[in-house]
Amino acid sequence: MSGSPRDHLTFGDSLAAHVARRESQIVLGLDPDPARLWPAASGSGRVAADDALLEFILATAGRLGADVASVRVSAQASVAVLEHCRAVIDAVGPACVALKPQAACFERLGAAGWLVLEAVCRHARSAGLLVLLDGKRGDVPVTASVYGEAMLSGAPSPFGRLPGLGADAMTGNPLLGRDAMTALVEAARAGGRGVFALVRTSNPGAADVMDVALQDGGRLWEHLARLVSSLGEGGRGPASGLSDVGAVTGATAPEHLARMRELMPHAPFLLPGVGAQGGDVESLGPAFAPGRAAGLITASRSIVNAYEQSASSPAHAARSEAERLRGLAWSLV
Amino acid sequence: MSGSPRDHLTFGDSLAAHVARRESQIVLGLDPDPARLWPAASGSGRVAADDALLEFILATAGRLGADVASVRVSAQASVAVLEHCRAVIDAVGPACVALKPQAACFERLGAAGWLVLEAVCRHARSAGLLVLLDGKRGDVPVTASVYGEAMLSGAPSPFGRLPGLGADAMTGNPLLGRDAMTALVEAARAGGRGVFALVRTSNPGAADVMDVALQDGGRLWEHLARLVSSLGEGGRGPASGLSDVGAVTGATAPEHLARMRELMPHAPFLLPGVGAQGGDVESLGPAFAPGRAAGLITASRSIVNAYEQSASSPAHAARSEAERLRGLAWSLV
Repeated sequence: MSGSPRDHLTFGDSLAAHVARRESQIVLGLDPDPARLWPAASGSGRVAADDALLEFILATAGRLGADVASVRVSAQASVAVLEHCRAVIDAVGPACVALKPQAACFERLGAAGWLVLEAVCRHARSAGLLVLLDGKRGDVPVTASVYGEAMLSGAPSPFGRLPGLGADAMTGNPLLGRDAMTALVEAARAGGRGVFALVRTSNPGAADVMDVALQDGGRLWEHLARLVSSLGEGGRGPASGLSDVGAVTGATAPEHLARMRELMPHAPFLLPGVGAQGGDVESLGPAFAPGRAAGLITASRSIVNAYEQSASSPAHAARSEAERLRGLAWSLV
Repeated sequence: MSGSPRDHLTFGDSLAAHVARRESQIVLGLDPDPARLWPAASGSGRVAADDALLEFILATAGRLGADVASVRVSAQASVAVLEHCRAVIDAVGPACVALKPQAACFERLGAAGWLVLEAVCRHARSAGLLVLLDGKRGDVPVTASVYGEAMLSGAPSPFGRLPGLGADAMTGNPLLGRDAMTALVEAARAGGRGVFALVRTSNPGAADVMDVALQDGGRLWEHLARLVSSLGEGGRGPASGLSDVGAVTGATAPEHLARMRELMPHAPFLLPGVGAQGGDVESLGPAFAPGRAAGLITASRSIVNAYEQSASSPAHAARSEAERLRGLAWSLV
């Protein structure tokens, strides 16, 4: 990857450059469900490599002792998911700055799903998109480093360099504290990549733990926000001022955004919850105060399934919805 | 899987039956590092299926557009890791009740690593071990369900039933609150499986967040412990009294164990940190108050790498250390 921006730029500067070049703050979430793929993803878009995938998984997993009928299901579902993801990226990618694949949905497909995840990351990169891998990983330091290697940078080994998924950033869970997060951040920073730590998620249950009141008078999410800000101090981009440690900040709690920006002045915010989860893009102004790349708007089902409320084709409806969000967000700064 | 215990027993009862039958509370942690495999895992133990793995990963990932040299590294490292894991399970399994594979270490190997993880889970089951998958997953409810399907039970799909990894239990991260954890627990409970939620981990940084003081006078880990206890209420085994929602409770803070048992009277505890991380098995008495299966002792590097401080072979040194831990723990009740 010599000569690529990540050899020279911090994640914050790379992100800001991508947002400016693509004129978009929209992050396309991909959480493919084999029961809800685009109608076209059922054979017509299949290419030779997909059949190779199917053949490979069947032969190998069978010889490793797996139940062949079960493996056939995984392989067929994986091929359909790959076709779907390629079609979605081709249709919607031009309106977006990044792709956010949801790791769980690929893991559900087994080893074939991980092959598909790798192929989807490559397809996104070739479409000019950053890849923000959404796996919400968090573990003790030695293991957090391994997750960083798996998702982001790869790792040396006696067999040669393990490639890893090569994502530009990953989501991380800060419950295990500073040393655990530092291990993730160091793995990211060494390669000019980033981490988005959970600060306040968009599900109703987030109130149960992240909103708990602390002895110091604040809420747990404010404590996590300070940790995120501190972790990012050594990784600010000189051009953008943005750090390489961002925050996942649920867009369904917009009244918190101003406070979050106060606590994390340099962190890029990843704002899920727009669309299917009920968030509202017009209320996100404070996120963008440090600049357009400081607020990334994630949408998944509201884009991918837009055709269900439309007379248009899946591709056209999805692109239209993504362009609508892009225009709305771009107008806020 | 009809006729298997999980069709009839809750996870707590299944766990208690396994502990009684195997006379062991030891959970063998597997976090394989390609740079630190058993010396024998370098070719002599290779079987035909391993070469098939290598051959097909190369052909398929290459056809899907991956860099073939990188894929070759992943495949070769994966074959060596598979041989290592099989050898460790064969040597140490008889002293243990369960295997705890660390998901990160397999993800670092890419799609080939996931194939190896699947094969390792099968190998453990055929050795009579429960499988506790350590991935510390946590996400919003819709995604938490997908993780439950991926790790534990599998899922229906239009292509047939996706098998999932079929683990007996998984570790989960409760930061996202009750609704997110409920989705994981429901996915587990439906198949007689379990979830071990992080309450207080064993790394030094755990103090930064899990020990934070709350307005109500307690610590965050006590708040998490109450959540765990409440989530487990609907899933107690009638025979053992143990619930299907356990707790990861770092053995490096033994002064907390009595309080944890008070807050979670029916939860099985997963006690990492013995051995390599500095914990001490004799101090774990309160964990076992509800019965032997209420306290599971995890050890990874202290078992697998015991030969480095010994004149014995890797297999013999590992088995000896596991038997030593097994005897110590069994004598505590």
